[in-house]
Amino acid sequence: MKLKTLRDAVCEANLELERRRIVVHTWGNVSAIDRERGLVVIKPSGVSYDRLTPDKMVVVDLEGTVVEGDLNPSTDTRTHLVLYRAFPAIGGVAHTHSGHAVAWAQARREIPCFGTTHADYCHGPVPLTAPLSAAEVASDYEAETGLAIVRRFGNEDPLARPMVLVAGHGPFTWGKSAADAVLNAVFLEEIARIASATIAIDPAAQPVEDHVLEYHYQRKHGPGAWYGQKTS
Amino acid sequence: MKLKTLRDAVCEANLELERRRIVVHTWGNVSAIDRERGLVVIKPSGVSYDRLTPDKMVVVDLEGTVVEGDLNPSTDTRTHLVLYRAFPAIGGVAHTHSGHAVAWAQARREIPCFGTTHADYCHGPVPLTAPLSAAEVASDYEAETGLAIVRRFGNEDPLARPMVLVAGHGPFTWGKSAADAVLNAVFLEEIARIASATIAIDPAAQPVEDHVLEYHYQRKHGPGAWYGQKTS
Amino acid sequence: MKLKTLRDAVCEANLELERRRIVVHTWGNVSAIDRERGLVVIKPSGVSYDRLTPDKMVVVDLEGTVVEGDLNPSTDTRTHLVLYRAFPAIGGVAHTHSGHAVAWAQARREIPCFGTTHADYCHGPVPLTAPLSAAEVASDYEAETGLAIVRRFGNEDPLARPMVLVAGHGPFTWGKSAADAVLNAVFLEEIARIASATIAIDPAAQPVEDHVLEYHYQRKHGPGAWYGQKTS
Amino acid sequence: MKLKTLRDAVCEANLELERRRIVVHTWGNVSAIDRERGLVVIKPSGVSYDRLTPDKMVVVDLEGTVVEGDLNPSTDTRTHLVLYRAFPAIGGVAHTHSGHAVAWAQARREIPCFGTTHADYCHGPVPLTAPLSAAEVASDYEAETGLAIVRRFGNEDPLARPMVLVAGHGPFTWGKSAADAVLNAVFLEEIARIASATIAIDPAAQPVEDHVLEYHYQRKHGPGAWYGQKTS
Repeated sequence: MKLKTLRDAVCEANLELERRRIVVHTWGNVSAIDRERGLVVIKPSGVSYDRLTPDKMVVVDLEGTVVEGDLNPSTDTRTHLVLYRAFPAIGGVAHTHSGHAVAWAQARREIPCFGTTHADYCHGPVPLTAPLSAAEVASDYEAETGLAIVRRFGNEDPLARPMVLVAGHGPFTWGKSAADAVLNAVFLEEIARIASATIAIDPAAQPVEDHVLEYHYQRKHGPGAWYGQKTS
Repeated sequence: MKLKTLRDAVCEANLELERRRIVVHTWGNVSAIDRERGLVVIKPSGVSYDRLTPDKMVVVDLEGTVVEGDLNPSTDTRTHLVLYRAFPAIGGVAHTHSGHAVAWAQARREIPCFGTTHADYCHGPVPLTAPLSAAEVASDYEAETGLAIVRRFGNEDPLARPMVLVAGHGPFTWGKSAADAVLNAVFLEEIARIASATIAIDPAAQPVEDHVLEYHYQRKHGPGAWYGQKTS
Repeated sequence: MKLKTLRDAVCEANLELERRRIVVHTWGNVSAIDRERGLVVIKPSGVSYDRLTPDKMVVVDLEGTVVEGDLNPSTDTRTHLVLYRAFPAIGGVAHTHSGHAVAWAQARREIPCFGTTHADYCHGPVPLTAPLSAAEVASDYEAETGLAIVRRFGNEDPLARPMVLVAGHGPFTWGKSAADAVLNAVFLEEIARIASATIAIDPAAQPVEDHVLEYHYQRKHGPGAWYGQKTS
Repeated sequence: MKLKTLRDAVCEANLELERRRIVVHTWGNVSAIDRERGLVVIKPSGVSYDRLTPDKMVVVDLEGTVVEGDLNPSTDTRTHLVLYRAFPAIGGVAHTHSGHAVAWAQARREIPCFGTTHADYCHGPVPLTAPLSAAEVASDYEAETGLAIVRRFGNEDPLARPMVLVAGHGPFTWGKSAADAVLNAVFLEEIARIASATIAIDPAAQPVEDHVLEYHYQRKHGPGAWYGQKTS
């Protein structure tokens, strides 16, 4: 994929965040990686969505050095880079402050898998990171945020649960592309909204049975997935 | 009704789901049946709403064999088929993951009939299915989902309560046509939303009096219904 | 005011209900009265908002006899007529199933006056009617609904609290015109929504101080009201 | 800045309130100050947003005397003036009845700083004023509302927390310009909405750690802030 195509895709993915109404103001950022060249394309910092164009996207290498672009990259860039380095299978990352996902992150609760809407996209509870210490914040807050996510996943396949809640902060999601990362951000917000509505009806609501969770997840993502159309 | 007309109606009903904002992404599907020929027209699996056209609708017989169409039918097709076989009076079926209805399904509570808004469309609480066993999920999950719905209704007229919550999953609704099924999906989501708001004000809220429930339901659906305009 | 002008105003007021997004489907109706002739113009029953035109409005006398129009008047017409007969100062009536107002009506709680947003439009709690008996429902449900509202107000000026919750059903609002009645329906829904959010934060929240309630209400509606522009 | 430019900016800022959907009807007002001339431009009282034009804005001096304009200024004008006199660093003030902020004001709770979304814009809890006495309401309610805000801030920098909840009433926000004041009104409503969702998940949710709050606030507003683009 050419870098120009990736700029287009990342710009479009950022705009999609706003069209889906899960960002307020400039509160979100999406990136994608060109694995061959080791370059990441990301939204510039603090630019409103109505002024975003592909040529404003910033290109950085995996150490964070700006390679192309006149604007500053998103302040969250180092978090994205840590994720790309630790999770070789992912191609795009999204960060938002979508309200219901943030509420679970602020309440510091993993989102239990209450039903099939959740199981269709996330193989178990939505994970939550451990809080950052004062020392971690002081040394390199953005990188440490990424490292806290990576520690939370350990050896787990990050595409089985392509989403995380950073404690006291908000969600990061990812996927094979920038567009996938944005879709997962949209799905996480909806999963979080419905989970909140569920515990409002019954605070003791229980997760869905494992055999249902497993069936729904495999139907969409397993080796013999039969949801959707064959694309090959 | 010609099959082409049915394709148009089913496509339109699926699009209406999105216009009413009760689906996110591709999370919903609507079908209709041609009772004379025993053919069901249904949305293809995993296709976005902005690309849906009548010619993409899939035609299957009551055993699920694709009769017309190049795309895979919705993964929930076998659930629809079970409903058509068991409920001869229905002409359309809709399935969504609309948030408030899903929340009651996940909390595994029937929605009490708290007032006239509910009574106007559903003759009593919105029913809830029993959970599926691991064996049922393993044998034929989609058909077993339909059978769980059918068991829940027993000998009841399915048009008196044209809606159900599948435990841990979400709502199915139906009606005399695809358009009616979608309207009932919209009404159920609104009924569920208002019921959640009601128990947030008073967790011990009581159902509306039977004589009011009965009056409102009969006013719209009884033998001498006088709501609306005479259409004959 | 000519009857044609009143038809236009009533049609427009009904459409405004939908533009303000406080009705779903056909769940609302607005009327206005020509006091000189004793004629009431009201929405036809069960007609969608996208097909409403002034010539479809139905004209009835104060006994409910259709004087002009080919369609059936709203099934709630007799409730409107009781209000016009009992409250000579009102010129328009609106009925909706707006979700938050319905939730309070279903929870059968008056909405306490928690703050100035409420006090600006309603001089004290939003009143709630007593439930209807089976005998009342059996004799003339729609008229009895109106009578329950009238009994709730007694000798009170109905324009000081131009809104009511019918227990287990939903809101009726009124005003000097159909447009005013609709505005009060919009305000009631917002007042109800914010009241629900208030008790979610503190279930023991207290009403605003009387001196603030009184000041805000008088600022907008008292004899020397100074809100807005002089219209004379 | 010419007065005409300020009229344009204030009109635009008022319209932005409605575009962001945080006002219902005419329930909001924004002003800005020309510090050199000591003149304040403010929305007229009770005029709908669809009829607002720059020439309808009212110009008053810091004592509240109308200097230009045929319409009455907002009834809340004296509150704005007290804020401009007490807080020399601010250039614009906004007042809304946005629902979630009003709910916290009605519940009379400061909004705890539960996470980074909040910390990015407000350096600690959103403050709440003390209630007004009957004597204060009787003497000069609007000015006393401003004075209650000023007392709540004491010697604190009003730009560190550019927002306040007036008990039993609703939010006032401010900033360097009318546009900034409106953005802060939008942010406060979102912060309030997410805080309500947070305590719905865990009523005992705790504020974010001080070191995270401090880092996020300084990243956007500290002397060496590095969020966004250099604008010099």
